Amino acid sequence: MTTAAAAPTLAPAEHAAMQRALALAATEGISPGPNPRVGCVLLAPDGATLAEGLHRGAGTPHAEVAALAAARAAVGPGTLRGATAVVTLEPCAHTGRTGPCAEALLDAGIARVVYAQADPNPAATGGAARLRAAGADVVGPACPDEARALNPVWTRAMELGRPYVTWKVAASLDGRTAAADGTSRWITSAVARRDTHRLRGAVDTVLVGTGTLLADDPALTVRDADGAHGPQPLRAVMGRRDLPPSTRLAAPGPDGAPAVHLRTRDPRAALADLWERERRHVLLEGGATLAAAFWRAGLVDEVVAYVAPVLLGTGPAAVGDLGITTITGAARLDVTDVAVLEPDPDDLAPPGAARSGAAATNLRLTLTPRKES
Amino acid sequence: MTTAAAAPTLAPAEHAAMQRALALAATEGISPGPNPRVGCVLLAPDGATLAEGLHRGAGTPHAEVAALAAARAAVGPGTLRGATAVVTLEPCAHTGRTGPCAEALLDAGIARVVYAQADPNPAATGGAARLRAAGADVVGPACPDEARALNPVWTRAMELGRPYVTWKVAASLDGRTAAADGTSRWITSAVARRDTHRLRGAVDTVLVGTGTLLADDPALTVRDADGAHGPQPLRAVMGRRDLPPSTRLAAPGPDGAPAVHLRTRDPRAALADLWERERRHVLLEGGATLAAAFWRAGLVDEVVAYVAPVLLGTGPAAVGDLGITTITGAARLDVTDVAVLEPDPDDLAPPGAARSGAAATNLRLTLTPRKES
Repeated sequence: MTTAAAAPTLAPAEHAAMQRALALAATEGISPGPNPRVGCVLLAPDGATLAEGLHRGAGTPHAEVAALAAARAAVGPGTLRGATAVVTLEPCAHTGRTGPCAEALLDAGIARVVYAQADPNPAATGGAARLRAAGADVVGPACPDEARALNPVWTRAMELGRPYVTWKVAASLDGRTAAADGTSRWITSAVARRDTHRLRGAVDTVLVGTGTLLADDPALTVRDADGAHGPQPLRAVMGRRDLPPSTRLAAPGPDGAPAVHLRTRDPRAALADLWERERRHVLLEGGATLAAAFWRAGLVDEVVAYVAPVLLGTGPAAVGDLGITTITGAARLDVTDVAVLEPDPDDLAPPGAARSGAAATNLRLTLTPRKES
Repeated sequence: MTTAAAAPTLAPAEHAAMQRALALAATEGISPGPNPRVGCVLLAPDGATLAEGLHRGAGTPHAEVAALAAARAAVGPGTLRGATAVVTLEPCAHTGRTGPCAEALLDAGIARVVYAQADPNPAATGGAARLRAAGADVVGPACPDEARALNPVWTRAMELGRPYVTWKVAASLDGRTAAADGTSRWITSAVARRDTHRLRGAVDTVLVGTGTLLADDPALTVRDADGAHGPQPLRAVMGRRDLPPSTRLAAPGPDGAPAVHLRTRDPRAALADLWERERRHVLLEGGATLAAAFWRAGLVDEVVAYVAPVLLGTGPAAVGDLGITTITGAARLDVTDVAVLEPDPDDLAPPGAARSGAAATNLRLTLTPRKES
């Protein structure tokens, strides 16, 4: 994590422009995919706002370029000479789907750049240095924590150089995912199951092992009450066994393609493959063996645990062998959020709802593994 | 549960007196032991308060008798003729350590009795009928829910004719009580462990199996930061094996006596024995086999689960075999309370506190088994 030793001093107009740029980046309804949320405001030398821009997703202009285009359209190119660009992320220096923003800013005659967060992407960093080398006045990182909060998962993934991994566990209070005979419908409540779809919709990849594929034949799509909606994560299966053609993951999904098959048992190799596919956030959806392999490899960044008020006594465990033999080796986590998921009134009505657990109060715990010093 | 079909109409002075009687019964610092909390207010025919009384525990006067004595001391015996007794529990008709309150009220010349809750104790009921038969005007149950809330455990125990049973579970997020090698210090946090002492202090009996006795040699006393304090529950061990003289439960406890040994494996027989000892609230403290036996016998009324943000993967399960083979037989519970137990600042300081889990956020869930229709 990059933190400024002391926050650089900004002019009042720059401070206000940075708050606006952060708000632009946080615009609702934007799903920038593998890219970060970024906002940019261009200021005239007198502090007046010339234009704004934000990044709307892979293949579309970066926030700086969008702001430059807006300024040119509104006030003409000449007025940008000597202007200041206030942007939530260090301008990139690399050519991806779009050209480097540092060059675009220099070409436009921007004299000063204020950025909130240094670029944690090793492939994109160097923009500030490039701008300085070309004579621009560069200030940043000005408020890295606020900017990081816009893109916490993306930032962490960039720092790690691999997708951020969230492990979803749904279990009875005694840590089981099914009864002794393997039956499991339902342990968690209807609200918890809907929340799982929300969680899927917030990641870009859902991953299961071939064991779960064969046992459960999951669809791994995002559904709401009306069916399939919104952005769908990439569906991925990991393991050496073939995907039977009759399974739902072998059939075309919402993106028209079958699930990606990662033919490896090595979590690191699987993540490297997904990283190449520009995947930044992977949700481990099952089973216990897959998650345990990621855990043992130190590749779990977050755990989201749904706990149902159910006792089973026997049956498959939600958590596999983590290689822990004694209590000093226990996997300890920090609780970052506790949500009490109360049943919806609609869930209370159907016959058998209480008996099936659909209408129960469930808990959702969000946890991060402790890094022991 | 006894519920009035419609709340009887009370005079304004009687309504106010009932609120006062409920408050008297709820007086802090009173531990009535095996008896319920009861309050009583005596009103003159004009509605003026003559005296108040409350029950302070086994062997001391019942609330009605305490109020009668206070009235006689304050205003003389004659003034009670034609008075009204407002009391939170139906006056008893039986002779226990004290005489029947119904007779005492009649002897004092009380003409009208308003009570909040019918007596759920089969041995004590009949007071209202006795009073009516003797010509008194009797109104009740006037507000059974408020009165029941004073003594929820006592009321339920009386209805059941056995002690109310709370099962305490403390486990990792994946439902384990120790690592693979049996080590378990510590899974739960310092705050959770202190909360366990609070829980012990709120029951009148703590019960373990001989297996837990032999494995853990528990003391089962109530301790706070300063050592042993406050009322101590009866310590009881259940099982056919002898208690080794070297164990802490075989040594005299805070009450000067060793733990009671219930030489049975039958939970119902154990509870009958404890009932004879006037025990009304039993806390199952371990282990999993003992609790499972109570669960299978339908003798668990409440579960208090401490959940620590720890994963173990392997190791002993917190919940034993409940006889559940398929998901339709799952033990479902209602969540009645969720408490997030944040670490105390003092727990954060000691070296190794984070590593040991002492300073972690734990959860406490209170649950009641669902009664399927």
